[in-house]
Amino acid sequence: MLLSQKDINDYKEKGYLFFPSFLSSHEIIQLNTELSILIKEESIKVYEKNEKTIRSLHAPNLQSVVFDDLQSDPRLLEPAMQLLESEVYVHQYKVNLKAAFDGDVWKWHRDYIFWQKEDGLPKSLLTNVVVYLDEVTEYNGPLMLIPCSHNVEMKNSRVKGDINQNNNEEWLNHLSADFKYTIDNKEIKTLVDSYGIVAPKGPSGSVLFFHPELAHASAPNLSPYNRNIAIITYNSISNTPIQESKRPDFLANKNYSPLKVKIIEKGR
Amino acid sequence: MLLSQKDINDYKEKGYLFFPSFLSSHEIIQLNTELSILIKEESIKVYEKNEKTIRSLHAPNLQSVVFDDLQSDPRLLEPAMQLLESEVYVHQYKVNLKAAFDGDVWKWHRDYIFWQKEDGLPKSLLTNVVVYLDEVTEYNGPLMLIPCSHNVEMKNSRVKGDINQNNNEEWLNHLSADFKYTIDNKEIKTLVDSYGIVAPKGPSGSVLFFHPELAHASAPNLSPYNRNIAIITYNSISNTPIQESKRPDFLANKNYSPLKVKIIEKGR
Repeated sequence: MLLSQKDINDYKEKGYLFFPSFLSSHEIIQLNTELSILIKEESIKVYEKNEKTIRSLHAPNLQSVVFDDLQSDPRLLEPAMQLLESEVYVHQYKVNLKAAFDGDVWKWHRDYIFWQKEDGLPKSLLTNVVVYLDEVTEYNGPLMLIPCSHNVEMKNSRVKGDINQNNNEEWLNHLSADFKYTIDNKEIKTLVDSYGIVAPKGPSGSVLFFHPELAHASAPNLSPYNRNIAIITYNSISNTPIQESKRPDFLANKNYSPLKVKIIEKGR
Repeated sequence: MLLSQKDINDYKEKGYLFFPSFLSSHEIIQLNTELSILIKEESIKVYEKNEKTIRSLHAPNLQSVVFDDLQSDPRLLEPAMQLLESEVYVHQYKVNLKAAFDGDVWKWHRDYIFWQKEDGLPKSLLTNVVVYLDEVTEYNGPLMLIPCSHNVEMKNSRVKGDINQNNNEEWLNHLSADFKYTIDNKEIKTLVDSYGIVAPKGPSGSVLFFHPELAHASAPNLSPYNRNIAIITYNSISNTPIQESKRPDFLANKNYSPLKVKIIEKGR
């Protein structure tokens, strides 16, 4: 699948593209089956503040062929190459599980500042591809985006002072509900006054592309249904780190080889 | 204004009625002006966990004629009498402020158990009338209701064990984000599987009537806009407490005289 010029223009203007029901229900069942195995197995997990609910699971591609194949699927990879106008590799790959009842908040933030400050990526030549593993509704903590905010310079992106000093691993401060780089409330208000908020909702299998400078947040999930999403972050091969990131490989992949499209036989 | 028989049947079946843009914008401006004064003055306030954001303001009628008049307004009082099939008085009157960015969660609960266990009201012959002082959207923590749940008996409504022992006032445990009576997640799932969730959204001035046994919750407000609502809880005069409540009057009004309709001249 290739994006149309209109899609590309929309993405440049608004910072996101949403395609409901993009992957088949068969593919989603496969991914969810794999995910349930990864949850039970040894895998790289970050927990919510309650210390028992999984908040995110990192680098599912290292343990699951199905998740690994997904990043080379032409329906995701080709649009990513179009949007970044180059070959790409995956900088980060994770599943954000917003568990029924217990999945917690992600405060307003932009992603690129993490990849700039922590990983040394010189430009925001990345794109997030979000695959909905569950139906996303207004009730289960959908991603909220501020359209067009990727084009607005923010003066006050700030480093939070009260990060959790008890975390053994410094990188955990990038992933917990109280995390390192947020956006000032005043700036969010100015942006929302101008551009509003959107929360793309749709069935499992829907796919959202969004720009790493787009301001976004998500509320806790009070509903009885999980809101699990896989997020593949592609980086342009022209945008490899100035200096190798000190963060673990599962947050900052060190293999910069361009990904090749892989056509997977359906229904295997 | 009087409810139609269809309205009454809907309320009996679903446990709520919603009327968008029920009060005029002029009236809402008056109420919000009063509210901003009450916020600045000495008044009965409960704070969020952050100890600086106001979560609720109690008995605004004791300090504000405009809020006092509202409870006798025929557009609210007459439907309440119809729904409860008797004369009524106000058991509880509050403003729940879900502040922009900082307004916190209300977990799944039903109201009547508080009024039964804490205040000795023998039956659930009450109705909540919610007046939207701000526009309520999917982004600012709308009330989420489980339709029809007021007719379902729940076996496991439970007293939370981990209430905050540091609260000087025991009643604060009924009002904070970790509060006393919640509903088991399993029961919520069963209810939502059957009946779904609704979140009535509308402009300021919208009015929601809902049954005190209806399961409801609301997410934190991540948006830059407040979501303030006034809640008047009418009780049937046939349903006065078995024994006088030990809670303060602003939570359990001890004046059981039936309210009389008061026609307020507009635009005074």
